[in-house]
Amino acid sequence: MGGPLRFYFDFISPYAYLAWSRVPALAARHGRALEPVPVLFAALLGRYGHLGPAEIPPKREYIFKEVLRRGHGLGLRVVPPPAHPFNPLVALRVASLPLAAAARARVIDALFQATWGGGPGVHEAAAVAEVLDRAGLDGQAMVRAASGEAAKAALRGQTEAALEAGVFGVPTVIVDGELFWGNDALDDVERFLRGEDPIDRAMLERWRDLPAAAERRR
Amino acid sequence: MGGPLRFYFDFISPYAYLAWSRVPALAARHGRALEPVPVLFAALLGRYGHLGPAEIPPKREYIFKEVLRRGHGLGLRVVPPPAHPFNPLVALRVASLPLAAAARARVIDALFQATWGGGPGVHEAAAVAEVLDRAGLDGQAMVRAASGEAAKAALRGQTEAALEAGVFGVPTVIVDGELFWGNDALDDVERFLRGEDPIDRAMLERWRDLPAAAERRR
Repeated sequence: MGGPLRFYFDFISPYAYLAWSRVPALAARHGRALEPVPVLFAALLGRYGHLGPAEIPPKREYIFKEVLRRGHGLGLRVVPPPAHPFNPLVALRVASLPLAAAARARVIDALFQATWGGGPGVHEAAAVAEVLDRAGLDGQAMVRAASGEAAKAALRGQTEAALEAGVFGVPTVIVDGELFWGNDALDDVERFLRGEDPIDRAMLERWRDLPAAAERRR
Repeated sequence: MGGPLRFYFDFISPYAYLAWSRVPALAARHGRALEPVPVLFAALLGRYGHLGPAEIPPKREYIFKEVLRRGHGLGLRVVPPPAHPFNPLVALRVASLPLAAAARARVIDALFQATWGGGPGVHEAAAVAEVLDRAGLDGQAMVRAASGEAAKAALRGQTEAALEAGVFGVPTVIVDGELFWGNDALDDVERFLRGEDPIDRAMLERWRDLPAAAERRR
């Protein structure tokens, strides 16, 4: 049995929602422990001065169409939250509280469902608490804990560690030191775990060593 | 028979290379004329203040792995060009010269092959001319024509028109007014042309009308 499968996500991302619907079964199929890691997507973008897909107007429209198409392929109905973008910090911090694996998965399920599954969204602390209550957890206590320094530091630390590990977007899977980005990459994860990743290492080395013949002016 | 299938691309993009290997057959299967449209990817990025995938160091490495994986799935060996990024202007302008459809396809084939198929790259005019010569065209004359004002204006005009049409990246397909972005979207194009696009219009309308509950500080 190999190391854990780390799943980096932010509730803001509908692609992360799609991936979350598949990744627990994927990890189980390969006998890997699943470690979901909440990270602040905005901080990943900020590190690289990058824009999120919803920040480019024609791309914002396009990606949601793609999400509806991929959702359909997975038999998953995707419903936009009441507002987007929204501040995901309370939800991310709640999902980062010290919890047993099964409880954490239940929290993440409930919050993703609240965001992209037709629920009330997670941009308000009261809604987060209510959603957790309905999932059989103590929502008030969890939201209170999430506003403490320890919870804030946990999320910050996870996001920093993700950046260190090369995470540049969500969803991302890291398993056995290999990083996979995007919902569309889960089939690549599957092949990798079967020992069938078709990477041509010589070509990859060549790509790493390429000189630049031009720089874009910014 | 419906309208043409427009394929927007830049030789700089290995995803465009992957898509180009499939898109002529896709258009033919659906009785659509293929209209390849060279555009300057850097100008699309510039319009939105966006970064290309190769401009974020961990993403640069990742996307090439993904390209190798997708290439493998298509039975296509992808070889990095001698330098990347490079200045694609000569190649893009040559591919934008007034040409009959079959000749334009031959030019694009040759230049993509030169870039991502193990050739000498297209970042130097001499290499472009040689590559075209070897494809049975008059490389010298074409490269000369590509340095004229008309060729420069053609590429600028195509890029502007692409931006107007909502193109934000390459490769992009627009057919019957619907835009599809990315090599991974070609299966979506296929379903769309079969009348099987599973977009939930009500959900899309809701997404379009969403308020923002937060703005990212930049």
